[in-house]
Amino acid sequence: MMVVRENFDNKLEELQAKMKTMSDLAVSSIEKAFEAFKSKDVELALKVIDEDEAVDDLEIEINQFIIWLMAKEQPVARDLRRIIGVLKISSEIERIADFGVNIAKSTIRSGNINSLVDISNLEKMKDISITMLQKGLDSFITGDMKLAKEVGELDDEVDRFSDETYKSITSYLKEHPEETDQLVQLLLINRYLERTADHITNIAESAAYLIKGQMYDLNA
Amino acid sequence: MMVVRENFDNKLEELQAKMKTMSDLAVSSIEKAFEAFKSKDVELALKVIDEDEAVDDLEIEINQFIIWLMAKEQPVARDLRRIIGVLKISSEIERIADFGVNIAKSTIRSGNINSLVDISNLEKMKDISITMLQKGLDSFITGDMKLAKEVGELDDEVDRFSDETYKSITSYLKEHPEETDQLVQLLLINRYLERTADHITNIAESAAYLIKGQMYDLNA
Repeated sequence: MMVVRENFDNKLEELQAKMKTMSDLAVSSIEKAFEAFKSKDVELALKVIDEDEAVDDLEIEINQFIIWLMAKEQPVARDLRRIIGVLKISSEIERIADFGVNIAKSTIRSGNINSLVDISNLEKMKDISITMLQKGLDSFITGDMKLAKEVGELDDEVDRFSDETYKSITSYLKEHPEETDQLVQLLLINRYLERTADHITNIAESAAYLIKGQMYDLNA
Repeated sequence: MMVVRENFDNKLEELQAKMKTMSDLAVSSIEKAFEAFKSKDVELALKVIDEDEAVDDLEIEINQFIIWLMAKEQPVARDLRRIIGVLKISSEIERIADFGVNIAKSTIRSGNINSLVDISNLEKMKDISITMLQKGLDSFITGDMKLAKEVGELDDEVDRFSDETYKSITSYLKEHPEETDQLVQLLLINRYLERTADHITNIAESAAYLIKGQMYDLNA
């Protein structure tokens, strides 16, 4: 029985390692997309769009691995909740990487015009989101409830930056209708980043559910 | 063994009925939100926001039902894929209902100003999306691949309407910067509807995966 457990734990580790790889790819998508946005680098933006396929492939691989693992090991209780957690988290990560693609597309659409709008809030939101993703995954893997709560607090911070940015861009837009195309893309990027943080908060919620489930067993 | 199978099928039906109820709530969220948007009815918009909790609760109920069912019945192969399909679809439906909430919030924000922008495309996108959702769920439940493909085709149609609407609103905005606040909300609603259709397409993909899996068994 010990060998069976050890095998299962190895499979679970393998599964979580795939999830971690997927998360690294999503972070890279967001980072590169933001770099492309700042430097108006259309080539880099196109690269982000191309590279998204790897994230999609990895999500499918994780799904199939899970179906195989469930059929083979018939996990119950906490093991089952952890596996379902990975299933849900991998779908969140796929969406986070999609926001990188969205930022890349907005970068391509917004073209080469230089606006005087301040984008420093957007950069802060991007940085906070990446910190949140790290904390959310760590919370899920290590079972640290404190980290999950920190993700929720950081999400409030992102929401505040997003509201501020929305107001400043729309008020600038009223004075500069000739920059409409670019400013609308900035509004979209603002929204993508706010949504990215929301999806990361979902990951922290999956972590919290797993952690709480250990305390209040739902099968009990 | 026949009794066991029958019991399991009953549970599966119960699970799919919950998914269908959730989908009805999501459709109601989108319909009411759009009605509130058209008639600038802030009270109805607030109602949409309030009612979203029922969808969230139902998603949690479905998740817990699935965890219980998996632990109890240890399903494999096609049963397992169907259950995981419901898990993924319920998470898509939850997001679709959220778009209803987003439309409601945009309605509240855009206030009482009457713009001359044509919103008939938005209504078409809303109607097509609801048809798509019906087809996507039917495809998953009945295993009809044709319906899943139709969802993909309708999504292309929604994308075309969305691109058109985006162009017409932004070009109108350039001439009417004084309507920025309201027009930006219209751009967001356009985006929410396009995203709603994307999430419904994900449901059709879950259906296609289940149907294809029956033909090319992944555990084989």
